[in-house]
Amino acid sequence: MALVTLTSDFGTVDGYAGAMKGVIFARAPEATIVDISHAIPRHDVAAGAFALATAAPQFPPGTIHVAVVDPGVGSSRAPVVVASGGHIFVAPDNGLLGMVAPEPDNAYAIAAAAFMLAQQSTTFHGRDVFAAAAGALAAGAAPGEAGPAVELCGSLAPMVGASDAVVVHVDAFGNLITDLAAARLPTRPRFRIGDQVIEMLSPAYYSVDVGEVLAYIGSANTLEIAVREGSAAARLDAGRGTVVYVDDKAK
Amino acid sequence: MALVTLTSDFGTVDGYAGAMKGVIFARAPEATIVDISHAIPRHDVAAGAFALATAAPQFPPGTIHVAVVDPGVGSSRAPVVVASGGHIFVAPDNGLLGMVAPEPDNAYAIAAAAFMLAQQSTTFHGRDVFAAAAGALAAGAAPGEAGPAVELCGSLAPMVGASDAVVVHVDAFGNLITDLAAARLPTRPRFRIGDQVIEMLSPAYYSVDVGEVLAYIGSANTLEIAVREGSAAARLDAGRGTVVYVDDKAK
Amino acid sequence: MALVTLTSDFGTVDGYAGAMKGVIFARAPEATIVDISHAIPRHDVAAGAFALATAAPQFPPGTIHVAVVDPGVGSSRAPVVVASGGHIFVAPDNGLLGMVAPEPDNAYAIAAAAFMLAQQSTTFHGRDVFAAAAGALAAGAAPGEAGPAVELCGSLAPMVGASDAVVVHVDAFGNLITDLAAARLPTRPRFRIGDQVIEMLSPAYYSVDVGEVLAYIGSANTLEIAVREGSAAARLDAGRGTVVYVDDKAK
Repeated sequence: MALVTLTSDFGTVDGYAGAMKGVIFARAPEATIVDISHAIPRHDVAAGAFALATAAPQFPPGTIHVAVVDPGVGSSRAPVVVASGGHIFVAPDNGLLGMVAPEPDNAYAIAAAAFMLAQQSTTFHGRDVFAAAAGALAAGAAPGEAGPAVELCGSLAPMVGASDAVVVHVDAFGNLITDLAAARLPTRPRFRIGDQVIEMLSPAYYSVDVGEVLAYIGSANTLEIAVREGSAAARLDAGRGTVVYVDDKAK
Repeated sequence: MALVTLTSDFGTVDGYAGAMKGVIFARAPEATIVDISHAIPRHDVAAGAFALATAAPQFPPGTIHVAVVDPGVGSSRAPVVVASGGHIFVAPDNGLLGMVAPEPDNAYAIAAAAFMLAQQSTTFHGRDVFAAAAGALAAGAAPGEAGPAVELCGSLAPMVGASDAVVVHVDAFGNLITDLAAARLPTRPRFRIGDQVIEMLSPAYYSVDVGEVLAYIGSANTLEIAVREGSAAARLDAGRGTVVYVDDKAK
Repeated sequence: MALVTLTSDFGTVDGYAGAMKGVIFARAPEATIVDISHAIPRHDVAAGAFALATAAPQFPPGTIHVAVVDPGVGSSRAPVVVASGGHIFVAPDNGLLGMVAPEPDNAYAIAAAAFMLAQQSTTFHGRDVFAAAAGALAAGAAPGEAGPAVELCGSLAPMVGASDAVVVHVDAFGNLITDLAAARLPTRPRFRIGDQVIEMLSPAYYSVDVGEVLAYIGSANTLEIAVREGSAAARLDAGRGTVVYVDDKAK
């Protein structure tokens, strides 16, 4: 039984995400299809990369992950099939896989006729290419049957700072997720984001009073900034790219 | 294994869509249920018809599609089971199937007790009638067991213009989908929508610069108007019913 | 084949709900997972309780329902496994199960290592505890294996009035759902909500003209107030907690 996940910026007001599911089932009627998200902000490749990195690694080995967030439909960003860490990804080569599969085992351009619909529109590659390729894989095709091996060239803008942290994602609760790994924090850290100073790392979200700002280690094992039962993004006027300065009170 | 799709205007804030899934599983525990959309704008039968026409035909033959967008709950719009092109549809007879099954093979009123819940509320036909009927079908009942054969009488307002195009749908990206089939376009078309003139048909969404208006053939194989990485609906102050005038530069 | 439903306030912009699905599939690859809702308003335990009470009872016996709406992540609200009416619930002990399982057959604290991920973050109990526990149950573990039997202590604020009705939920359409059971209505009721008087109980939503306010018995078998094809919440400036006064014209 093939397991297929879907991540896109299509929303669900239209039938586009549904059409992708239909194409997959038409080729692999026994597949199990689950939504990760169709609510990625439109054309926001970095947000899609984050959602994928949050969800995909939890799935069992062999899962096929289809991800479509692509400002460049009709352009030259090649659709690819990527094998990484026991999972298979179907996505445009535009950096969308940059967080979940930074060093893939194998990558193939989608070129084989069996990996596309016979009749294609110029605008709906989600259905005509990505879903069709996922259907072929779910029906048993190997990633290498997609087409020639390629090097991925798409990439997210580099998001890693030096000793400071950069907000790489704002989640639906307004929590600020940064790129700073827990292991890189000093022993007695102090944080500053705009005018707001946070004197310590809290052990848990619930360690502070309602409405208070806190810094803690989030589920991605990186530094996060939040307001308990509120929105840190709104309170601190912060968003992706905002810098969180970190210094060491032990010094 | 029966495959059942769901399309509704219920949203997912409440448990209504979930209740429908429960009723189907209670009658057909082996069914596979997939969401097409629960985000159809409230009571917007035409938008539901479009989503259904986009997604349903991609599914394999034998799929059961349940669609509930019905301003007339409690009124006389009969719930029906419709067979068309190898697919089965369960919906109110209000035009919701007008695009996906304009000339159905068979249509039956839902009248049999086995196609409804024993206890019914007056307001939640999605659960008590449509989901129950889908559950019966998924468990193996034939469409004709639903009740007497009927002629469908619900219809969408006629949406086909002459040589001009009419916007029949605005998708979540603000793209304007029209009813004008690609085959009906002149060889060298020029388009006008409000004050905006578009001098040519573009081969692909990506053919123009970011922020530019373009005309192209969309995934439904009809004329669409878009703004690359923007919203044509907002830019052109256009919506469903807006006319796109087409003339022929070859003349 | 285990059937697992998900209800949360996670939204789907991020990958959190998807991560939960991955954890469940990693432990129970044959499970069927369906979304009830990931659009519960953030931290709104009562809204989650209502969605769960609307949807969960429709599912077949043996269904595992995972519900996560928890303002107190990292605090002492114990995660529990609850058996009630043939269904199994996995949720925080904060009242979220108060409507769907007011008098559970059995309740167990989640304490066993097999019901959690080996590595836990402090903030994402949805993945690390609730989804892991659901995965263990879906793979065949009995509820009693979760940990010691407990008495539930979480509760929703009491929501039952005397002879009047209290709005306990506003659905996505703006309909006002109250706590007043149909059986408790007088024979010839008259209703007042703010300045608006409603002279009678309507048999169906469709009994009044478009735009008119009506009172009727909703799908939960309690009094509801609606505006036909409009929002009663907006029109009447009403929300949860608003009182609907009921008197008896027969007196």
